[in-house]
Amino acid sequence: MNFELHPSLAKQAIIINLPLCQVLLHDESLYPWVILVPRKANMSKIMDLSKQDQWQLMQEIDLTGHIIWDLFHPKQLNVAALGNKTPQLHIHVIGRQENDPAWPNTVWDHPNTLPYTIAQKEHLLNLLQTAFNQKSIEQDINT
Amino acid sequence: MNFELHPSLAKQAIIINLPLCQVLLHDESLYPWVILVPRKANMSKIMDLSKQDQWQLMQEIDLTGHIIWDLFHPKQLNVAALGNKTPQLHIHVIGRQENDPAWPNTVWDHPNTLPYTIAQKEHLLNLLQTAFNQKSIEQDINT
Repeated sequence: MNFELHPSLAKQAIIINLPLCQVLLHDESLYPWVILVPRKANMSKIMDLSKQDQWQLMQEIDLTGHIIWDLFHPKQLNVAALGNKTPQLHIHVIGRQENDPAWPNTVWDHPNTLPYTIAQKEHLLNLLQTAFNQKSIEQDINT
Repeated sequence: MNFELHPSLAKQAIIINLPLCQVLLHDESLYPWVILVPRKANMSKIMDLSKQDQWQLMQEIDLTGHIIWDLFHPKQLNVAALGNKTPQLHIHVIGRQENDPAWPNTVWDHPNTLPYTIAQKEHLLNLLQTAFNQKSIEQDINT
């Protein structure tokens, strides 16, 4: 079986494909929120990945964290693989601010929600794509 | 500055020291819930760790996931580095069941809570220590 996005993930816009993960922009303007989906079929938990893919995933989490940090200057990063509602393995990387609606609680069960406008989403996708392209090149140079 | 546990983490019982992390049993009997704390000073986010420590952390997340999976047969694993309330880097590894109080939501902001009895905690610490010692040996043999 080939890799296919779960319907709840397929609704999100694709930012870029990294070596392992498809990187999605979660449609929630209250937080800078990116989702990494390893492009492997039938994965539900981090430990379902091979050791090599686990290492690649960690590098892509690190890359994504740096990008969110540099672009949005959050107070903290929340990184999580949950999968209770969407069983396909996906990793949330979320920048948190002390004045965001859910702080200091987690974002997943928070009632407030505000999708991006089309213009906001286009702007953000552009910004993130540029950052991923730039940072991926830097990472290649430094390793 | 040397590694020291944040007061909210220091309240939890120590299961074992792995090469990178101190492994804690979170005192919440509603879920099998283990916390990995990298034994490095001044760490708040995964990306604060060196690449080598990130790789070690991933191996210890994988090891912990397998132990929870084998001992408690959960439906899903939740793995998360949050740090909104406790800024010291720590990673939650939680076994989730379809009949646990918070399912399918996350556990962090759920109102139900039930600490272990002393006897339960002692039993569980014993079980987990034996499993970590056994699995660590297996992992060494297989790498």
